[in-house]
Amino acid sequence: MASIDFDSLKRLGAASHTFDAGEKIFMQEDTAARMFVVASGRVQIVTYGTVLENVGPGGIFGEMAIIDDAPRSAAALAVEPTEVVEIDRPQFLELLRENPEFALHIMSILATRIRKMNANL
Amino acid sequence: MASIDFDSLKRLGAASHTFDAGEKIFMQEDTAARMFVVASGRVQIVTYGTVLENVGPGGIFGEMAIIDDAPRSAAALAVEPTEVVEIDRPQFLELLRENPEFALHIMSILATRIRKMNANL
Repeated sequence: MASIDFDSLKRLGAASHTFDAGEKIFMQEDTAARMFVVASGRVQIVTYGTVLENVGPGGIFGEMAIIDDAPRSAAALAVEPTEVVEIDRPQFLELLRENPEFALHIMSILATRIRKMNANL
Repeated sequence: MASIDFDSLKRLGAASHTFDAGEKIFMQEDTAARMFVVASGRVQIVTYGTVLENVGPGGIFGEMAIIDDAPRSAAALAVEPTEVVEIDRPQFLELLRENPEFALHIMSILATRIRKMNANL
């Protein structure tokens, strides 16, 4: 599976942010059509006290809101000092256009999540 | 949200298939990296007796296996006389390349499914 290419993110002008351990990156129900790529550190995706996912370097999160523009379905929390690169919707569409492998990568993350959830039905 | 363009499917050489009411289109655990677009009729996505989804004209199903090449996570059943257009993996990649809106459409279907499942957690 193709990984995220940090160079193309930089070229698109994607901004970098740092968070301390324990800091919230976004809250459930927030509205913001942005996704994030973890540059370093670790992020937990949490809903009502349940940890849905641990995201490490090269991993992405927040991709749901950028796809359908709906409020955040879960919160994201830095569990150690963490640097993330933020991708907004125009940048996201540009990545889809220039790189079908990026589209497949995002789809594959979503499909994996659905399969895990199906397995727990 | 962009819908599926049947003309571009035809141009790619995607094959059409018809199924009678009650006929299986694929079974859970089948391996086959193909997705389907409903041209007419109605398809139910079923796992262990639970109906996960009803798919009508213009809707797609079977997209999970084409993304990650894993066995089918559910079965698909024609619930009335149904015509589907079959897309194989090379055709799928070609659609991603030529049309970022198609990628976004597939992602949006997956994101909607995840949100529904999250809501039932």
